[in-house]
Amino acid sequence: MRIVVDAMGSDNFPEPDVAGSVDAAREYGDTIIMVGDEARLKQELAKHTTTGLKLEIVHASEVVTMHDKPSVVGKAKPNSSMHVGMNLVKNGAADAFVSAGNTGAALSIATLFTLHRIPGVKRPALTAIIRLKNTNTVVLDVGANADAKPEWLAQFAVMGNIYAKNALNLTNPRVGVLSNGEEEGKGNQLVQDAAALIQPLPLNFVGNVEPKDLLKGGADVVVADGFVGNILIKSMEAATSMMASALREELKANVVNMMGALLSRSAFNRVRKMIDPFETGGAPLLGVNGVVIIGHGRSNATAIKNAVRQARAAVNGRVIETIRDGLQQVPTVSQS
Amino acid sequence: MRIVVDAMGSDNFPEPDVAGSVDAAREYGDTIIMVGDEARLKQELAKHTTTGLKLEIVHASEVVTMHDKPSVVGKAKPNSSMHVGMNLVKNGAADAFVSAGNTGAALSIATLFTLHRIPGVKRPALTAIIRLKNTNTVVLDVGANADAKPEWLAQFAVMGNIYAKNALNLTNPRVGVLSNGEEEGKGNQLVQDAAALIQPLPLNFVGNVEPKDLLKGGADVVVADGFVGNILIKSMEAATSMMASALREELKANVVNMMGALLSRSAFNRVRKMIDPFETGGAPLLGVNGVVIIGHGRSNATAIKNAVRQARAAVNGRVIETIRDGLQQVPTVSQS
Repeated sequence: MRIVVDAMGSDNFPEPDVAGSVDAAREYGDTIIMVGDEARLKQELAKHTTTGLKLEIVHASEVVTMHDKPSVVGKAKPNSSMHVGMNLVKNGAADAFVSAGNTGAALSIATLFTLHRIPGVKRPALTAIIRLKNTNTVVLDVGANADAKPEWLAQFAVMGNIYAKNALNLTNPRVGVLSNGEEEGKGNQLVQDAAALIQPLPLNFVGNVEPKDLLKGGADVVVADGFVGNILIKSMEAATSMMASALREELKANVVNMMGALLSRSAFNRVRKMIDPFETGGAPLLGVNGVVIIGHGRSNATAIKNAVRQARAAVNGRVIETIRDGLQQVPTVSQS
Repeated sequence: MRIVVDAMGSDNFPEPDVAGSVDAAREYGDTIIMVGDEARLKQELAKHTTTGLKLEIVHASEVVTMHDKPSVVGKAKPNSSMHVGMNLVKNGAADAFVSAGNTGAALSIATLFTLHRIPGVKRPALTAIIRLKNTNTVVLDVGANADAKPEWLAQFAVMGNIYAKNALNLTNPRVGVLSNGEEEGKGNQLVQDAAALIQPLPLNFVGNVEPKDLLKGGADVVVADGFVGNILIKSMEAATSMMASALREELKANVVNMMGALLSRSAFNRVRKMIDPFETGGAPLLGVNGVVIIGHGRSNATAIKNAVRQARAAVNGRVIETIRDGLQQVPTVSQS
């Protein structure tokens, strides 16, 4: 397998991106193609022992930053590492693309300039994978489409189900719709119309899912429009990070508290990971015609390596091909 | 002032409801009218020292439970303590109504059966007051209207602003719209259309507010449609309660952690209050023609007393009258 890593993606590029590529090449034995400023990548790569590893560098003269506007960057920077890297996948020179860069830019460059949509897909979706204690939950859309149609949500359900089965190896994934109450009939018009479209599909549909059910692992795939999905993820992030800083502050407040904090450090470290589900780890852009995994900007080498692992799983699970076939088998959705 | 307390409202009624009424009568010197099963309330009241306090009981033969459907309870239980209590306000026998009962039922009984809407109000809104470290943030709508029109959000902005100023004593409240990004132009169509309507109003409009800004106190009033507002509040609740139980679990994991937990107990107790903003405390139904404060079902006596305090502030601040006048002065909103 040949996997492209955007070596200019993370906040601290290219260090974590290159280190993660080296680790991935060593652990998985695949070819990792690092895309970015050639001179800089060679210099960075020289810090690592790479004997016997399948590592390649492909030059890209431009870098997409977190400040670049997704709506203009595709045209403004046609030689970015994202652009060049995705084209390698499009042209068959590689099997998947991994980046810890600007998510909106990646979506735009993938959809409009390079890979384009899988035939039949109305709208691609941004995905978040919430890592719970015993399972993962796939949430989509978390930001690509602020206004959505019921048909798009039905497609998200189909695509999320395929990703959960084929890439995350979940058996018979439970698919739900994010709503403000569990009972049938709850939700806004979009949620109700989407549920009516999803109900007859060959999915393990569990109906409405509230945020608390989601965090209790009550569904494996949860669909929402991109506005609501984004508010969901951002609210959870904001609330946990508020609690974490309140804890830190309180524990510094006096010596007894500090001693308590030291004693219970292992507990805190484990709880800190409970904040991570919303912040780190890679998630696929679903609906674009190629495997694209986006990691968090703050990714370290391990996170990059894990994103490569996710890309491998998506390729091995034939996610793209299965989505294409899956949508064709669902006339209600693909014809609407 | 005469304030009605629904004595059959809280999960553990009538104990906390009666105890809170007694405390409120003592602390504020107002008349508290407890509505509910007369025999039961007399029995409960006998446990308290009430000499010199202005406490009254008004009989109501039915009780709204948390399981009652808001859409049918108004008709099904016309003699509920909510129904009877709100009618006391409607008929001028009291100034405000406080309940820790079923929020949806209270909204329905207030809007359709007793107080009705303030003239000019398109839709009443459920409000949540998030208690942050140094301030309170009023969020509305958090559940009354799953689908909303831009005009309704503009009215929520006006009503929320008046409540923040007149009842919470905030000076020149910053009013924002919940969105998925701070930049102008972010948000779904509803958010963008609502922002365009709110912009010219005589408010201190700060534009789009993301969940993290909200929790940092970046706005005093945040409007949303009832679906998104509900997802916001429930996501924050779910995330903080997941973190809290993870903490508890980890701290029980071994003896050293437990000792740490004991030593840092005061810190934990303070942090536990950071979870409260989403769960306790009263919040007004805004837009109904009378002061109605709804507390959380888990309210204890102190929470009931605090809800009475909020009701007093709303009455003293002439919130209802000011909303009526405020909407008339905003032709863009009231005519649409």
